[in-house]
Amino acid sequence: MATQPTHVFDAAIALASTEEGHYRGHTHPAYGNMVGPFGGVIGASLLNAVMQHPLRLGDPLSLTVHFAAPIADGGFSVQARAVRTNRSTQHWYVELIQHDEVAAFATAVTAVRRETWGTLDAVFPAVPPADSIAPVAPIARAAWTAAYEMRFADGIPGAPDTPSASSESRLWIRDEPARPLDFLSLSAICDAFFPRIFVRRPKWVAIGTVALTTYFHADAAQLAAQGSAPVLGLARALNFRKGFFDQSAEIWSAAGALLATTHQVVYFKE
Amino acid sequence: MATQPTHVFDAAIALASTEEGHYRGHTHPAYGNMVGPFGGVIGASLLNAVMQHPLRLGDPLSLTVHFAAPIADGGFSVQARAVRTNRSTQHWYVELIQHDEVAAFATAVTAVRRETWGTLDAVFPAVPPADSIAPVAPIARAAWTAAYEMRFADGIPGAPDTPSASSESRLWIRDEPARPLDFLSLSAICDAFFPRIFVRRPKWVAIGTVALTTYFHADAAQLAAQGSAPVLGLARALNFRKGFFDQSAEIWSAAGALLATTHQVVYFKE
Repeated sequence: MATQPTHVFDAAIALASTEEGHYRGHTHPAYGNMVGPFGGVIGASLLNAVMQHPLRLGDPLSLTVHFAAPIADGGFSVQARAVRTNRSTQHWYVELIQHDEVAAFATAVTAVRRETWGTLDAVFPAVPPADSIAPVAPIARAAWTAAYEMRFADGIPGAPDTPSASSESRLWIRDEPARPLDFLSLSAICDAFFPRIFVRRPKWVAIGTVALTTYFHADAAQLAAQGSAPVLGLARALNFRKGFFDQSAEIWSAAGALLATTHQVVYFKE
Repeated sequence: MATQPTHVFDAAIALASTEEGHYRGHTHPAYGNMVGPFGGVIGASLLNAVMQHPLRLGDPLSLTVHFAAPIADGGFSVQARAVRTNRSTQHWYVELIQHDEVAAFATAVTAVRRETWGTLDAVFPAVPPADSIAPVAPIARAAWTAAYEMRFADGIPGAPDTPSASSESRLWIRDEPARPLDFLSLSAICDAFFPRIFVRRPKWVAIGTVALTTYFHADAAQLAAQGSAPVLGLARALNFRKGFFDQSAEIWSAAGALLATTHQVVYFKE
């Protein structure tokens, strides 16, 4: 019998349950960043603690991750608890503990979705199809960039490609190697947009995401329909001031469904 | 000696400290909503628990509020703890407990801001000045609407005023009576934009904010410079689907400073 090999993303976010809501995890070298692990995989690991929880109701609706302190490569524990459970929504609090201190924490909402009226007001970005754009090379000093295939329509960091002073990037992105999209990988992709300051001002400075919030617009069926095809991301910042900037992104399917929107506040040194 | 009378907003968010990080609060009839209290004042009360905490470092940078369950009119307790304190940032978790259950909770980041490079990429909305637009009448069944003065340039709920099917509103807003802006009142104003579904589709349905995240771009000096003048809000939604929609807003000073950006996910019944 053939066994499906474990995708490196699943290996990186794997949690071993020790008791209900308690887990052990470990950083993975394939998702290393310049210092410590790539935040998107940390956030996905915290969401995974909710996904694996026996009391979970429904699918992810929102996720907020606080990167409270540097995370060292190595092991950590995760504790997830349902703070409040309603009829169709559930609110979560999750902590990542390393060396006896909280290094990251998250809140989340899971929800049972129902058929209702709906309409899409956001506009699908007009970009060339993914297969018409060459992928960029990974960045050697940030291992995680090799775990994604990124095809930029515009806004490659460090190479401003528009006459306007814009922080915007539009790119096709998927896991590398390809992996069927789910809430976990989508949550990580939401943190895979390079810091806008490197697009807006091509100068290297130390940066770090402080807190990130993602809203999942897609349900499980929409994600399943996506398969392992690239998603289209549009990322931009609004304001850089006194050591912090904001960054927002939309994640679209090629078919024009808005899968997620995400927002973060990022520290920058100077 | 003359005594400054307490503004109704300050009365509504008042917390009595019982021990370090533990407080008692009470809903205020001036900020009642159709069911229970106006969420903006609940969020401001949770932020107030951080503001009053003796261990607080710096000023608010981000605030995420989970409206986990209906809040009844009456008393509640609040518990705030610093989850992690760094050199210039601090991460908070705050719970509002009513009838022995968590009815709302929040995470926040406070930070010490430093002078750095900066640039504003967002575009100040071109609207007529506040004093050229008449305020709208409060909505009788939502008491809190009388606690704000709102002057709409466009996007009055229930009265679509553009040929396009837009969920966008642009309005000048301030506390009524006027009150000098601070982080607390700004956090509440971030939740004072009417649910976008009422702008997009003029039909009354039950709605409720599930979770809200606000980024404070302004520092205390910018807020002090604002005084009690109206701020300019621009709110819009991107997607309405299967019982939930997102909603984002920018809050500007009349002088063109971006004071805050805010995002929320909202439940709607049908």
